[in-house]
This record gives sequence, C-alpha cells and structure tokens, in this order.
Amino acid sequence: MKIIKLIVTTKSKKYPIIIGSNIITKIPGILKSNNIFFEKSLIIADTKVPKKKLNILKKKIISKKTIVHFFNANEKNKNLKNVNLILNKLFKYNFNRNDCIISFGGGITGDVSGFAASIFKRGLKFINIPTTLLSQVDSSIGGKTGVNNKYGKNLIGSFMQPDLVISDISMLTSLPKREIVCGYGEILKHSIIHSNNTFSYLNKNYIKILNLKSPFIEKTIAESCKIKRGIVQKDEKEKNLRKILNLGHTFAHAYEATLSYSKKLNHGEAVILGIMSSANFSFKNNFLNKKDYQKIMKHLIKLKIPSNLNHYFKKKHINLIIKFMKSDKKNNSSRINLILIKKIGKVLLGLTFDIKKIEQFLKKELIY
Amino acid sequence: MKIIKLIVTTKSKKYPIIIGSNIITKIPGILKSNNIFFEKSLIIADTKVPKKKLNILKKKIISKKTIVHFFNANEKNKNLKNVNLILNKLFKYNFNRNDCIISFGGGITGDVSGFAASIFKRGLKFINIPTTLLSQVDSSIGGKTGVNNKYGKNLIGSFMQPDLVISDISMLTSLPKREIVCGYGEILKHSIIHSNNTFSYLNKNYIKILNLKSPFIEKTIAESCKIKRGIVQKDEKEKNLRKILNLGHTFAHAYEATLSYSKKLNHGEAVILGIMSSANFSFKNNFLNKKDYQKIMKHLIKLKIPSNLNHYFKKKHINLIIKFMKSDKKNNSSRINLILIKKIGKVLLGLTFDIKKIEQFLKKELIY
Repeated sequence: MKIIKLIVTTKSKKYPIIIGSNIITKIPGILKSNNIFFEKSLIIADTKVPKKKLNILKKKIISKKTIVHFFNANEKNKNLKNVNLILNKLFKYNFNRNDCIISFGGGITGDVSGFAASIFKRGLKFINIPTTLLSQVDSSIGGKTGVNNKYGKNLIGSFMQPDLVISDISMLTSLPKREIVCGYGEILKHSIIHSNNTFSYLNKNYIKILNLKSPFIEKTIAESCKIKRGIVQKDEKEKNLRKILNLGHTFAHAYEATLSYSKKLNHGEAVILGIMSSANFSFKNNFLNKKDYQKIMKHLIKLKIPSNLNHYFKKKHINLIIKFMKSDKKNNSSRINLILIKKIGKVLLGLTFDIKKIEQFLKKELIY
Repeated sequence: MKIIKLIVTTKSKKYPIIIGSNIITKIPGILKSNNIFFEKSLIIADTKVPKKKLNILKKKIISKKTIVHFFNANEKNKNLKNVNLILNKLFKYNFNRNDCIISFGGGITGDVSGFAASIFKRGLKFINIPTTLLSQVDSSIGGKTGVNNKYGKNLIGSFMQPDLVISDISMLTSLPKREIVCGYGEILKHSIIHSNNTFSYLNKNYIKILNLKSPFIEKTIAESCKIKRGIVQKDEKEKNLRKILNLGHTFAHAYEATLSYSKKLNHGEAVILGIMSSANFSFKNNFLNKKDYQKIMKHLIKLKIPSNLNHYFKKKHINLIIKFMKSDKKNNSSRINLILIKKIGKVLLGLTFDIKKIEQFLKKELIY
C-alpha cells in the first residue's frame, strides 16, 4: 500500500507525518530517510496498545538503550504526577537532549509524553506514533502538549512540535468502534471548518470510513491532517486563526469536566456533543443557515452515538458547565468566547457572549 | 540619564531590553511605546527586593487586577513545588493568555516565573525586571527558564523568550557587594568568550564597575547583553554555538550541587570558580597560552573572593562533583563535555574528556 508523507513547516520546526498501513515495521528506513538519530529511547506505551504491536516497535527502534514506560492513558491520569514519573525515569537512566521519547498510544499518551519531552532538560527529541483515529487526525499534528488539573483540561502544557509522526493505520483495527467514532468527530470538525466538498465526501462515505475501508480511511486521514496542517502552519501558537480548531471544544471541555472525565463520555464524544451545541447555538442565534444546520445535524445523528445533551446532563449541571466554560484557556474575559458556524466551510472567530445567554441556551437544551 | 534599548530577535520572538537608571518609574511609557498590553498581572517579587521599589512597581503597572506573589528566591526554593504555587494562584484568579506575569527579582525569580509563564495554558505574557547584576547581564536574556530537582540544576525547564526586559540600574545600589561580584563573574565570562578588547576594558575599569559608577556600569551591562544577544540570536535552542555561554558552568553546577546549593557558595561565585577551573584545565592541557592564562588568573584574584577550590572542597568531594558533572544536561555520553579557553576571545566547543582525566585534574587542584 502507498505511504503518504506530509511535511509540516512551522516557525519552530519542520517535520514529517508518515501515513500508511503496517508502517511501524518500516521504522528503521523511515528514521534513516528522515535523518532522525538518537542514542537512548524511552517508549511511553499506553497499556491498551496490543502487546504484539509493542514488541514490533521495540524490535524496530534500534538504539543504545530502549526502555518501555507503561502508561494507563485516561483523563484522570493525564496529570503532572505522571509527567513527573516519566521525567524521573529519564533522569534515572541519564537521558539527555540527544535521546528520544517515543509516544505509542492515543492523544492522552501523546500529550503527556510531549509535555515531558518539552520540559526535560528544556527539550529532547520526540517521536509520536498515534494509535487511535482521533490522535492520527488531530492531536498528533501541531505540537500542543499538556495535562489536566483540578481547574480543567490541558491547562498546563506547552507548544512543542514533534520530530516525526508515524500514523500506522493497522493500529486502528483493534480499536473498539466507540474509539473510531470519536476520531470521526474531529474529522467532521475539520470538514465543517474547511469546505462543503470535504463535508460532502464524509456524508457520502462515512460508513466505509467508520469501517476503516481502504482507500477511504487513508484518504480521510490524510485530508484531515492537511486541513489541520494548513491552519497550524499559519498560526502555530494559537494567536488567532488556530482558534477555529477549537470549534465545539469550549462546550466539549466543560462537558467532560462536569462529568469528572468519566468513561461515560470520552473526549471524542464530548467533541461531537460540542459541535452539536455549537451548531445549535449558531443556528438559534441566526449565524448559521437552516440548510447547513440540518445537514450537520442529520450527519451527527447518523453516527448513532447519544448526540443529545439530555443523555448526560440535567438542568442542575448548568452552573458547573458554565464554571468550566469560563475557565477554558481560550477565554479572555468574564464573557465567554464561542467559535460559531456561519456555513459549512466557514467558521466564525472572536465572538463573545454573555454568560446569561449561554445559561439560557443550555436551559432550553436540557429537559429536566 | 540615557536609556539604552536593545532588540533581541530570535526565531520564536522579537523583544526589547531596556536599560537605564530609575526606569521602573517610566513603565507606563515603556509598555505603551513597545505595544505591550495585558489585563491582569501577577508580580512575582523576591522577598529581598526593597519594599519601596515594589510599591513603585505596583503603582506603575496599570492593569485590571495586579496581584503580588512573594517568593523567597534561593536555589532550594527553585523547584516544581513553587512553580505549582504560582500556577495555582493564576488559576485561582482566572488568568488567561492575555494576562501577564512580571518577574521582579534576580535570576532564580526570573527562571521560576518564566517557567510558570511558559506552561500556564501553554504560555502567557512575560515581563522580566531583573534586579541583580547577574540577572541583568545574563539570565534575563535568551529565554532559558527552569527549576532544579534532586538530580541537579535547571533540569526541568523550557525555552521561553520574554515579551520585555527592563533592567533598572538603580535596583543594584541596595545589593550586597557579594551579589555585585557574582554578576561580574558572568560579565567576565562574556568578555573571555568575545574579545580581548572587552576583557581589557574590564581589567582597566573593574573597580569603577564594581562600585556601580556611571557611565561604566551602564556601558558594561549593555556590552554584556549585546555579546549574549549575538550568540542567542544565532542559536536560540542551544543546538551548538550557544553552548559557549556555558563556559565554566559544567564545573560551576557541580560545585553548587555538591554543596547542596548552600549559601556558602552562590551561583555567581560558583561560576567564577568554574571559569577558574576551565582556565586551569585549558592551560594544563595545552589549549590555553600562558600569557592569557595569567591575565585571567590575575584578574580573578583581584576580585577578592575565595577563588580557590580548597576553600570549599576536599578530595573526598571529588566523586560527588564528578557525578554531578556527568548529569549536567549538556553532556551527551559517559564522557564529559567541557568548554575550554583557547585564548581570550576564543572559546573551544565540542571537546569531551574521560572521567578519569577530570578526576586527576580535581585531585591536583585539591590539597586535602
């Protein structure tokens, strides 16, 4: 099968994303052809990654010393304590800036590993091997790293571009369906931001994509990466344009936090709910036209996840949701910043709303 | 008095350094003319900074909310725990990326504040107002931030350029003589790296400089900043060239760590000792000519600090010193990297030495 190579060029670093099936077996060649060398390596492996795949990776990473650090990736473990455990292992084995951290897991593993890589001796080498659809199409691109704390999600972190991203599609086949749908949420988000064409492609092929059918899945992953790359290259540090990637996320982060990052609602599902809330809010406040609103909603419903706030929340949760929306790091004042949809392919930035207005919106969305 | 403005242009950021006497009183104008705006501000003030000066700063920082966080700056408090205290204060007052951290203290305060600023919501605004000679001529330029841990100095940190540096010379008059000499150590280091001319200027005027006489002190600070700026601009992330700024520091960090960062030997003094060790090692291994070696040594002795290893260490300390030299973050293998002096104005990079050789050197330096 064809291997796709995309180059991301930001102000701080230029690095390749390699997409293909079974490409972790080709790592020695990939490293060599991209001039990536290191002495020691620490693989940070999500405990959920199949042992067989980890063994392949261990064999293919040829370094003086290869150590595996297991990490039980979930939002509760995405904290400074686990970053410290990684840092201490690096110190214990006397790692230095020419050595490498390799993340082998989904977005949470990548965020924690990348953050550790960015602050260990002010930065060592970092290779990200995302193993979930969500991380392959979204979090592995653009260099955001970070951890949660009691105040909210990703509130402590850094911008640190990796040296290499390897997206192996064969990793996806062992994922539960629920995980695939989560990744699809970000794919959908990218399409709404980017163009009606991309959205229509998804509308037509979503069943094949969700079933990981070739060449639809490869094409979709590469397209999603390209959309995100285009935005990140223009605004690496999220001064302005990059904020459009947070479409649905101010709601999503608050939804997750309100449920204390429970397994009941994982990040990808929260994003789908968040996109739905953004579309609803945009439509009800006359930013989004009815035709596109209905197209988005119909597509969301077809995904067959509980894309309804009432499944997760009651009216009594509103105060907590608002509290978390206020503490979201993209909010610059007591008003709340929301990214809204004007039409499919056109997203609106820089709009802020009074807390009261958002409260009222949530009250109408929630039945009880 | 004249105000000097230097612009530092790195890949990641362009920012001004303003040098002058009593310029904290002129902050509103400085902020305005440099287009620096923020809503809330957290001043991180070293408890040693005169209250009168802090009150002036508080009055001159006009922001929606100005909070002061006191920090007892010393190497023991330069740790993650204190970074967390700062982060929690920022969360508590709902700071965001458009708000600002203002460091008001020496190098330790700047390093801790800068690190907090770099990881809080992936970075907020950062103004550094260095109040010691050492921080004005060295640590405030170039964006290195970090904290210590049990493995050594500055082992956790980031590269984060500030938005503005304000070096107010009037802050120096209240410093103990010992602090002035410490800053002078870095000034001397810069001169040895840069040129015989700069070194000769110091040799001729060091008494006036140590007594903070105008215009010698201003000229010296600006010249030192310019030397460091030139290097940082070429190599922000310390891939290679910037390592020359670590002249004497591999020794210095190990000396400090061996004494558990005791007040007996502060950072600046350790650097002076480290420069001395580098000069000795360079001369004894035939890298440095006798004439320049003697010039450096004579100058060091004139500073009237105990510039002799025997004042601090005994032979039994050698193992510990070597252990800390090995864990220094600039070391990439089991051999130890040392920056040596070829002549005044020419420093050697990329030399590594066997641990045995350095052990023997230290054994000869130490009498007991």
